[in-house]
Amino acid sequence: MGLVIRGGTVVNAGERFEADVKVEGRTVSGIGSNLPKTSADTEIDAAGRYVLPGFIDPHVHMELPFMGMVSIDDFESGTASGIAGGTTSIIDFCIPAPGTSMLDALKVWRERSAKATADYSYHMAITSWGENTADEMRAVVRDHGITSFKVFMAYKGAIMVDDHALYHVMKVAAETGAVVTVHAENGDVVWNLQRELLAKGLTGPEYHPVSRPSAIEGEATERALTMARLHGTTAYIVHMTCKESVHALERAKLGGQQCYGETCPQYLLLDDRVFHKPDFGGSAYVMSPPIRPLHLGHHDALWSGLSNGMLDSIGTDHCPFTHQQKLAGASDFTKIPNGAAGIEDRLAILYTHGVVGGRFSLERLVELGATAPARIFGLEKKGTVAVGMDADLVIFDPNAKSVRSAKTHFSRADRSIFEGFEVRGRVDRTIVGGRVAFENGKLMAERGSGRFIARKPTHFARHPEVRS
Amino acid sequence: MGLVIRGGTVVNAGERFEADVKVEGRTVSGIGSNLPKTSADTEIDAAGRYVLPGFIDPHVHMELPFMGMVSIDDFESGTASGIAGGTTSIIDFCIPAPGTSMLDALKVWRERSAKATADYSYHMAITSWGENTADEMRAVVRDHGITSFKVFMAYKGAIMVDDHALYHVMKVAAETGAVVTVHAENGDVVWNLQRELLAKGLTGPEYHPVSRPSAIEGEATERALTMARLHGTTAYIVHMTCKESVHALERAKLGGQQCYGETCPQYLLLDDRVFHKPDFGGSAYVMSPPIRPLHLGHHDALWSGLSNGMLDSIGTDHCPFTHQQKLAGASDFTKIPNGAAGIEDRLAILYTHGVVGGRFSLERLVELGATAPARIFGLEKKGTVAVGMDADLVIFDPNAKSVRSAKTHFSRADRSIFEGFEVRGRVDRTIVGGRVAFENGKLMAERGSGRFIARKPTHFARHPEVRS
Amino acid sequence: MGLVIRGGTVVNAGERFEADVKVEGRTVSGIGSNLPKTSADTEIDAAGRYVLPGFIDPHVHMELPFMGMVSIDDFESGTASGIAGGTTSIIDFCIPAPGTSMLDALKVWRERSAKATADYSYHMAITSWGENTADEMRAVVRDHGITSFKVFMAYKGAIMVDDHALYHVMKVAAETGAVVTVHAENGDVVWNLQRELLAKGLTGPEYHPVSRPSAIEGEATERALTMARLHGTTAYIVHMTCKESVHALERAKLGGQQCYGETCPQYLLLDDRVFHKPDFGGSAYVMSPPIRPLHLGHHDALWSGLSNGMLDSIGTDHCPFTHQQKLAGASDFTKIPNGAAGIEDRLAILYTHGVVGGRFSLERLVELGATAPARIFGLEKKGTVAVGMDADLVIFDPNAKSVRSAKTHFSRADRSIFEGFEVRGRVDRTIVGGRVAFENGKLMAERGSGRFIARKPTHFARHPEVRS
Amino acid sequence: MGLVIRGGTVVNAGERFEADVKVEGRTVSGIGSNLPKTSADTEIDAAGRYVLPGFIDPHVHMELPFMGMVSIDDFESGTASGIAGGTTSIIDFCIPAPGTSMLDALKVWRERSAKATADYSYHMAITSWGENTADEMRAVVRDHGITSFKVFMAYKGAIMVDDHALYHVMKVAAETGAVVTVHAENGDVVWNLQRELLAKGLTGPEYHPVSRPSAIEGEATERALTMARLHGTTAYIVHMTCKESVHALERAKLGGQQCYGETCPQYLLLDDRVFHKPDFGGSAYVMSPPIRPLHLGHHDALWSGLSNGMLDSIGTDHCPFTHQQKLAGASDFTKIPNGAAGIEDRLAILYTHGVVGGRFSLERLVELGATAPARIFGLEKKGTVAVGMDADLVIFDPNAKSVRSAKTHFSRADRSIFEGFEVRGRVDRTIVGGRVAFENGKLMAERGSGRFIARKPTHFARHPEVRS
Repeated sequence: MGLVIRGGTVVNAGERFEADVKVEGRTVSGIGSNLPKTSADTEIDAAGRYVLPGFIDPHVHMELPFMGMVSIDDFESGTASGIAGGTTSIIDFCIPAPGTSMLDALKVWRERSAKATADYSYHMAITSWGENTADEMRAVVRDHGITSFKVFMAYKGAIMVDDHALYHVMKVAAETGAVVTVHAENGDVVWNLQRELLAKGLTGPEYHPVSRPSAIEGEATERALTMARLHGTTAYIVHMTCKESVHALERAKLGGQQCYGETCPQYLLLDDRVFHKPDFGGSAYVMSPPIRPLHLGHHDALWSGLSNGMLDSIGTDHCPFTHQQKLAGASDFTKIPNGAAGIEDRLAILYTHGVVGGRFSLERLVELGATAPARIFGLEKKGTVAVGMDADLVIFDPNAKSVRSAKTHFSRADRSIFEGFEVRGRVDRTIVGGRVAFENGKLMAERGSGRFIARKPTHFARHPEVRS
Repeated sequence: MGLVIRGGTVVNAGERFEADVKVEGRTVSGIGSNLPKTSADTEIDAAGRYVLPGFIDPHVHMELPFMGMVSIDDFESGTASGIAGGTTSIIDFCIPAPGTSMLDALKVWRERSAKATADYSYHMAITSWGENTADEMRAVVRDHGITSFKVFMAYKGAIMVDDHALYHVMKVAAETGAVVTVHAENGDVVWNLQRELLAKGLTGPEYHPVSRPSAIEGEATERALTMARLHGTTAYIVHMTCKESVHALERAKLGGQQCYGETCPQYLLLDDRVFHKPDFGGSAYVMSPPIRPLHLGHHDALWSGLSNGMLDSIGTDHCPFTHQQKLAGASDFTKIPNGAAGIEDRLAILYTHGVVGGRFSLERLVELGATAPARIFGLEKKGTVAVGMDADLVIFDPNAKSVRSAKTHFSRADRSIFEGFEVRGRVDRTIVGGRVAFENGKLMAERGSGRFIARKPTHFARHPEVRS
Repeated sequence: MGLVIRGGTVVNAGERFEADVKVEGRTVSGIGSNLPKTSADTEIDAAGRYVLPGFIDPHVHMELPFMGMVSIDDFESGTASGIAGGTTSIIDFCIPAPGTSMLDALKVWRERSAKATADYSYHMAITSWGENTADEMRAVVRDHGITSFKVFMAYKGAIMVDDHALYHVMKVAAETGAVVTVHAENGDVVWNLQRELLAKGLTGPEYHPVSRPSAIEGEATERALTMARLHGTTAYIVHMTCKESVHALERAKLGGQQCYGETCPQYLLLDDRVFHKPDFGGSAYVMSPPIRPLHLGHHDALWSGLSNGMLDSIGTDHCPFTHQQKLAGASDFTKIPNGAAGIEDRLAILYTHGVVGGRFSLERLVELGATAPARIFGLEKKGTVAVGMDADLVIFDPNAKSVRSAKTHFSRADRSIFEGFEVRGRVDRTIVGGRVAFENGKLMAERGSGRFIARKPTHFARHPEVRS
Repeated sequence: MGLVIRGGTVVNAGERFEADVKVEGRTVSGIGSNLPKTSADTEIDAAGRYVLPGFIDPHVHMELPFMGMVSIDDFESGTASGIAGGTTSIIDFCIPAPGTSMLDALKVWRERSAKATADYSYHMAITSWGENTADEMRAVVRDHGITSFKVFMAYKGAIMVDDHALYHVMKVAAETGAVVTVHAENGDVVWNLQRELLAKGLTGPEYHPVSRPSAIEGEATERALTMARLHGTTAYIVHMTCKESVHALERAKLGGQQCYGETCPQYLLLDDRVFHKPDFGGSAYVMSPPIRPLHLGHHDALWSGLSNGMLDSIGTDHCPFTHQQKLAGASDFTKIPNGAAGIEDRLAILYTHGVVGGRFSLERLVELGATAPARIFGLEKKGTVAVGMDADLVIFDPNAKSVRSAKTHFSRADRSIFEGFEVRGRVDRTIVGGRVAFENGKLMAERGSGRFIARKPTHFARHPEVRS
């Protein structure tokens, strides 16, 4: 009925130690030396392996409707892809159309996510500000266990919020103890640069980054953090890509503000030469904010932030579209659906380039990919290997080598932005809720076995508002 | 026919020296030792006095229509008040109502300013963005000798521009070689804070600063400078009041951006206790951004900026309203007309607290109040005592002492925000366009003698746009 | 023969969870729900209590010979005092006289510390640079399990090192994988300021801080970090007290340097008014660097650093002298022996002002006081509650209240710098190496039961030296 | 007997205007339109030319004894070389051997400089600290008109001062109102790196920069500025080369400290590839601090500093040695005499790359090369074209083109570090003390016509010492 994981090295954010781990039902029930095993228990040999907490992806979009298309991984294939990559929980974004009810959108998302193979929650997006928005925000937190919101400062004419909405989202969030996650780009500037480029006939994917310069990501980050500071709100800046936004976050943190920053593997490992791949190949990399140029210090700023603590978390922004879907923008880069697959690659990529590359310890990687997302977003039973925690575990072989490829990944995406990347380390087994869901390359994720995790608000404004 | 100013110490931004100064017509024609004097010349004894270039006020609002009222100094009384205080040129703001033509507004302003007693120009405000705005901007620069624009990031619902407009103003300005002056406050936040305060019954002038915290001045400054950087535009941030905005300007300058910052005497010398004066006395100090609290480092940041070169210019935002006019906001601080008199006080206040106070040299004060505004805004014949320059001169007695007061000033304002301030130094004589317009406390300014000064654009974007 | 700690809430740096903790011998052998207990086991009820890893004090001086005196807590009383306060391991400083052998000093320290009641290690001080110093450093790391060094940039004429020595210490440390801990103050300046003050007859303890301004702590911090950067050395700045040094550390960390910072409770909670206590009472607070003035931002910089991750660790610099001993400086503050007691107060003070005060979480406090010191200094079996780790544990009652006082503390110090401080939380039991050493206010620490912990070097320079 | 310079455009730091300039004796006596000319006057046609103040080189070493050699330009040839390049005054460094009397050294320097063809002063170097040093400093200021000192934080074993000496120099300077100029490099580190390189057989000039990394220039700059801040001393950091030191200066200035920074053309225009020139050609570029690598941001930091005001002055560190002399270090780069020629190139190089290159205006160049050095160092009658000022003038043709070369320069140096550089603009005439000393490529400088300029101290500490 249970599991005994024998002889591995448990690695958490704060410690590593050799021990057996006992799982009963969905829960870790014991950690010890030479733990006894009943006949009903399955024994897993983890000698020479790391036993890590299941990774949490705080930033994914499964079956996201977008421009008449839907992102190609649904909650089943997307979470399964994650499991194959060592990720056992996700936080998706519930995104109501502007002017529509959050609670209605929530019903849709709950339906879609019912087929998930791993546990999940949502960030609730606020895409407009109306009479009922504040009340719906309160209901979402109070009645639905959703304690984080999302605002988009870009995507003008669609889901972008203006400063008026931003002000109110921050205010109500602080009151309800919720975190506000922020897509930080100045949408007005993007909109204008897009128009200018298209008007000049510059329509290829290589103009996508030109339309979204790093300076305006920095500006929006500064603005969002200022809005949060006004109310004592905890802000979390998603998918940070550049030195300007890292510097804005640094200033806020050094000034005493409680706030968080996330980046994604693609912003660390890729550079803007990818947009020039032939045969519209650059479209595979189109996402916002864009992948940045080399030699301007962006990549260094991100890596340093991960090791010095200014960045807190690594997500993926998993949101793949097929090449066929991407072709919608064949003659206009602004029509290329934004997004790529990543949930399956995160652990291997970061282990290779972060840990083996000497940039930070495995403990720190666990913190960035599991413990911190769990703590920030209130997933109390996740993010660490400890008694009473959910038995979401990864058995990781640090010595294996492999190559990332769309040919072998479990995502439905037909491209991988990490195609051909050689990596160190391999997920041997992933245990989700006490069940082995991935083993020796074989996926055994069970449709619908994932649960919605209700969360409690903890980020109430603690200090008087700063208004001088 | 001319003047010979005998035996003074000329002080310019870069030098001080004893010499006679000869004026012919409106122009300084010679500087030398023992200059000959014809019988037609008037001789002025300047022994023991400084001979300074006439100060330039780059930030005034004469007879500004506002909320059904008009600011109480018109172009005649306002420029005369300036002359009494050593200011011989002004740059006013031509402010068309949103959606109306700049060229029409210009006609109105030219009519109003025809009675000016000193030379003048305007910054042209862009208060909305429409189909013709770019063309009008080009016409204003090309045909009307106006090479600086103004945008307000505050005053929502009135003259505030959004980021879309801001983007385009910056773009067209860079193309035409014009400077963009910016009122930097986040108008959406102000609007909301005002509503919140009023809803709580907090209606007195002491809530004016609460509705406009320094953090949002800093945010808007950062945003404006980012917008300017995108296009290579030269931005000039007006009336900076706080450390947050000084820091944003510092970052931009240290990063290589060409941009400028202005502050005003009230932000250096006063603090927010003034808003608590009895009998609605605080209303006299209501202006935006507001006068800041002590002990938070704002005043130090401004003084340091003036001496270390991060701030470039000192204006006054001269825009007085009478107590009677201020009473329009007796039960609602958001209805108090914003503004106060200052043009007549600037030189004396800054000489006392800047130069005598040991913070910077008299040369630096001349630079901040005359030379820099002239250079930044293209007043080629102004801002320095030199041959060929306009004979706008101030004979300044450094040893005199006096007290600033509404009782003795020449402005029509019935209050002085510097009431009772003891100052060192006195303007003995002011010479405007070669004529003595103020002498020994007696004003001889001549209605209509001031000329509109057409300017040439010089601030073309020199570098490729920074877009990474 | 073992312990079962029943029903508590384990709190580590990365997690909190309810579980029983089983101890066998000196080691935590199991963590689980309803752990079985043999008849030989003692059961401890921890319901409603936190079970924390034993705190580690990375900065103490027991029985330190100084100016003909010896600090009043020896290794027995000092470690016992620590145990009463929840500290179960210490790192002392082995300080050879300049020009003498480290290995000889080590013998002396090992003798002295044999009576310790808790586990210990030493940082080895380098107090001069000679022909054999590099070889001795290598031997200390290789043969003696000591992987951290200490340099004093102050105490001129005694143990201060100059930049030449500092350069070489950093170099050899990087080669051997050791950390260099640094007392950062410019000793030349201190020496001169002391002479100037005494020459003016300013001899009281209130002149101690005047002789050691914060600017020179900042300068020395910058210099030490630069020296470390040259070689790729991991530096650890001890007892940071001021914004200038925090800013220097921030710059280094944000620039990608691996380095650490420590502060102590006294610098967070006290201010320089303490030096004015009557009857030479200020002498009790004389330590270096000094306790800083309020209102200059020093305290805020330290608190922010603890919560935003720029500071890594909290030590105490425990080094008490009696009032009688302090009187050696009655007529000359430079002769007051430097130091005070603190090891017993740290946990309670920080729990109260850090955790209850809302500045950071209990998890973060555990990280600052236990996990981080263990990881930085290579105490592999310490700093966290986990299987296989040393059974150094604290049972902490968060609801109790008490008052800190020299009358009730276990240190031999006759004064407490926290006299009268009301605190929240109480150490109910401290378990050291699997044995209950403190229980319900009763100390049962066993002389000589502490062990020297040999450490392994891990901080080898990973990056090529930065030399441009 | 005088000169009338007719029809040129005078350019000062604060203004440009067309005017005739009249010179009588050594002095500018009049500036005006159509100035009358007596028969005794020589008329110089300056139509289409700029009339600039003679440039001042605040950093030169003429006939400097160094390592048994003497720099190859003496006061005659060096000042003549300067005149050909538009420089009409120099400040040399009087450098007593450690332990010897400043007043004795002063006699030697006054003798040497008696043959100068242009006006001069000295900075007095403090190369050790002894009993009489403070008194000699006071005498130098009071009796000898020398109001600036120099300290070297590098050149260990020779003229380097330690922090003790630095402390006292700063203290006495503040008391006497003198400026302290600082060579900022950590000499202990340099000494060690030199030894390490030589020990590895790395002896070529390409290892010179390796032995003096930018980090230690930054460190020393921070240290010097801290020492100055302690006493309220005005510090002037000479020959800044790198971002680290620029950032240290920025921090000080932004924090309100009065201090100054200088760079030199070689640090702006060259990069460290020069050290690899064949046939020991790299030796020509050996100077300290060294020329820096490209692509690390050093050059940008310097250029930005010149335009944003963080750097104040441009010197040359003119100190040429012949190739024969450089060969002293043929097998050991530490024995290569440090220095190169530059006084003759400065104006042309900076006009070309600064003004024509669009980085700053000609007014700013005049400020950096003439006005600011004059103001900072108290050369009251220099640095600007104004009545009563010394008639040191440059008639500059902005349209001419030429090529810098050792073949054509007037310095005795047999190499030019700017060999082959194409430049815009040409010095048509240089007027020194009212006499044409250079005209149409012909040098008419008169041996011994230069005067020592006694200066007055002005940089007294104005604020209470900052000691917290």
